[in-house]
Amino acid sequence: MTDPNHPFLAACRREKTPYTPVWLMRQAGRYMEEYRKLRAKFSFLDLCRRPELAAEITLLPIDRIGVDAAILFSDILLLLEPMGTELEYDTEDGPRIRHPVRSGADVERLAEVDPETSLGFVFEAIQKVSAALGGRAPLIGFSGAPFTLASYLIEGGGSRHYIHTKRLMYFEPESWRALMERLSRAIARYLNAQIAAGAEAVQLFDSWVGCLSPQDYERYVLPYTRATIAALKPGVPVIHFSTGTAGLLPQIRTAGGNVIGIDWRVSLDEGWGRVGYDVGIQGNLDPVALFAPPDEIRRRVADILNRAGGRPGHIFNLGHGVLPETPVEHVITLVRAVHELSAR
Amino acid sequence: MTDPNHPFLAACRREKTPYTPVWLMRQAGRYMEEYRKLRAKFSFLDLCRRPELAAEITLLPIDRIGVDAAILFSDILLLLEPMGTELEYDTEDGPRIRHPVRSGADVERLAEVDPETSLGFVFEAIQKVSAALGGRAPLIGFSGAPFTLASYLIEGGGSRHYIHTKRLMYFEPESWRALMERLSRAIARYLNAQIAAGAEAVQLFDSWVGCLSPQDYERYVLPYTRATIAALKPGVPVIHFSTGTAGLLPQIRTAGGNVIGIDWRVSLDEGWGRVGYDVGIQGNLDPVALFAPPDEIRRRVADILNRAGGRPGHIFNLGHGVLPETPVEHVITLVRAVHELSAR
Repeated sequence: MTDPNHPFLAACRREKTPYTPVWLMRQAGRYMEEYRKLRAKFSFLDLCRRPELAAEITLLPIDRIGVDAAILFSDILLLLEPMGTELEYDTEDGPRIRHPVRSGADVERLAEVDPETSLGFVFEAIQKVSAALGGRAPLIGFSGAPFTLASYLIEGGGSRHYIHTKRLMYFEPESWRALMERLSRAIARYLNAQIAAGAEAVQLFDSWVGCLSPQDYERYVLPYTRATIAALKPGVPVIHFSTGTAGLLPQIRTAGGNVIGIDWRVSLDEGWGRVGYDVGIQGNLDPVALFAPPDEIRRRVADILNRAGGRPGHIFNLGHGVLPETPVEHVITLVRAVHELSAR
Repeated sequence: MTDPNHPFLAACRREKTPYTPVWLMRQAGRYMEEYRKLRAKFSFLDLCRRPELAAEITLLPIDRIGVDAAILFSDILLLLEPMGTELEYDTEDGPRIRHPVRSGADVERLAEVDPETSLGFVFEAIQKVSAALGGRAPLIGFSGAPFTLASYLIEGGGSRHYIHTKRLMYFEPESWRALMERLSRAIARYLNAQIAAGAEAVQLFDSWVGCLSPQDYERYVLPYTRATIAALKPGVPVIHFSTGTAGLLPQIRTAGGNVIGIDWRVSLDEGWGRVGYDVGIQGNLDPVALFAPPDEIRRRVADILNRAGGRPGHIFNLGHGVLPETPVEHVITLVRAVHELSAR
């Protein structure tokens, strides 16, 4: 266990910290040579499923990059396999699901998941990481949020217009409800099991929810995300993350979370103002800004810190995951800049 | 010429109208059988380039769907060909550009365009449509905005992360400026020539600008879009449209336009409030909502009209183009619902 006063954990509670803590989505990934070497030998799913490898990858950026929190090396979709779907990774355009869910009957066929038995390798990896970290940095667990998992199940992969997902919402509201309730229960159980195994905070990724209007979000998503968050072990910080949701922030905040994760498409000050200063904010550098020269990266870090205004409760992050082509040195520049420029 | 008090033109000036005018982006397109029949015989570019065919398609939705404005059947990228690029349509994932612009030297090689000579077929089509409309409905001309054209030129097609575009911005700001100035000049000339040929309003499509942070928008886009709009013939309404820009609306409004077009990812009342009630607003039904049952479509129309609050200056539209699989009957339902439910 990490000291509860660790800057990351303190920031989640909106307490003052000596500097702004920083971690990065996909901080252990293809932009690191060490990762690419492992990936040359094992498939992505193999890396997720072998606790010793997942733990090794999770730990990579702690020393190498200097981030203030570890996030388990895993995938937001892992929960879908024990529900009875066939997931295919390593396709050109991201994970694909065979036999997508398209009807009430398909929803009924999805299994109720007991993550403790079916995803045991995740909890084993968490235990290994916790032991190896030995309190140096807290470990974040995570899952996809109900909408993002539902849209993957229904579309069978990424989507531009989410037509199948929205059709199910509009034409079969009862099937939609059944699906979202099932997912909400499974996600809560899964995250609680991660917490029991040693995760000291959890992030809920609603990566694709930005395709919805605020009215559809309120009606078709908010109740289920709220139920998921409400079912989590009290006292463990929850980061509620999404992208492309500048117009949805008040609704997303209503669904819950101690910290709201935003992307770069809204200014940090405006985003924080809109979710309210009684929650923390995570973000929000454009991942592509890491391709800029180091001076420009530092300038942008300063701008974001300036917009946070030194208020407690800011966790620095990108607005989405580190991109594979990102220069490692630039990521290190970013983390150093956050620490230096925010030192109080 | 249409009566200047036509509801669409009056709404552009934020004057009271007997009902809320409605037109739809891509209102003449693959969702219509008549269009698919033509498309079976001609390539997309052929349809754009043959004035009699482009005019015929432009007119299709006026009688069939009952919309209050015609928009020229054309493409936002047409201006790129006379600049010296090779455009390929009919690929699987949208238009592709061979030899994308990646450096200052590439920018220098782009030709200054004289649209009057190189895109004469566009103006001929406008003349034909104007004559055929005979004042029944105003005709809207359009072009891609500087950023959207620049990103197409640089990425060579659609993009997920716009890495090449942002790299040029960050590493070669002078080349970026030269490119945006060249595009801004060409677009203004092109739109003014459309106006001279008979277009009674113009829409500037900044379809992909939602990938930027507000700070990048201000620095790298706003001055050029503003210059484009400022160079247009005074008195002709300008609709400034973009998607995924809920966090950019104040900046977009600053760049100009009599009417700001928004998508469904922000509530109409919130979006209008953020751009200010001293400009008009266009939008903002989710195109996928047209797949919902007719009663649900009417309910959503009522909700959007309600959010507009009967204020003059609302032009009803989708948040993006009509999708190819959309049922024609649902589009007719939408247009009727707007007219009926907004009748004052």
